[in-house]
Amino acid sequence: MLNQQTDLDRLFNALADPARRAMVERLSRGPAPVSELAKPLPMSLPSVMQHLGVLEAAGLVRSEKVGRVRTCAIEPGALSLAEQWINARRTQWEHQFDRLGAYLASLPEEKEPDDAD
Amino acid sequence: MLNQQTDLDRLFNALADPARRAMVERLSRGPAPVSELAKPLPMSLPSVMQHLGVLEAAGLVRSEKVGRVRTCAIEPGALSLAEQWINARRTQWEHQFDRLGAYLASLPEEKEPDDAD
Repeated sequence: MLNQQTDLDRLFNALADPARRAMVERLSRGPAPVSELAKPLPMSLPSVMQHLGVLEAAGLVRSEKVGRVRTCAIEPGALSLAEQWINARRTQWEHQFDRLGAYLASLPEEKEPDDAD
Repeated sequence: MLNQQTDLDRLFNALADPARRAMVERLSRGPAPVSELAKPLPMSLPSVMQHLGVLEAAGLVRSEKVGRVRTCAIEPGALSLAEQWINARRTQWEHQFDRLGAYLASLPEEKEPDDAD
């Protein structure tokens, strides 16, 4: 439970940055070398590597260096954890609205005022 | 687009803390006064108010003070934004796997070695 809390902390923190989300968006379309991830981002390569480190620590991305090229790929499992947490909240509040609906339906109907008066 | 980026930054940052997630979990089951939100959390009331401020700035929670009691409620729309972002990534990588599958299926079948030899 504590571990899952830490996982969710790292995961949501990793997603709380536009550059890191842009990297995840690119990698969701397929693996890419770091140089390609860096190209659209307005920052130095060391900054990109730092963001990559945050994504890897959160389990969102893995990378492998072959020769001089480091290739990155998405790890779908981590995003699923975030998705599950959000879905569980949705289930809870939909249940809450269902109960509210049932309560409102159970109220005695208000009598229409008589038009003939 | 820039606004949505800022929204997502605030949203994921708000969810990157276990106390704030606990507050969202509690409020997903129905509205609650701040005192009830604070009860299970190992921190002072001012700290709880600070976390509440982060959740409100992210649009995840709204609160209203009536008399001396501040009551909080979930705002389902904000979590939907996070859900949509994650779902869009999932759609992308599932499409990527589909294309890989189609490619593998298009390869000529390897001939079985002849057992009779």
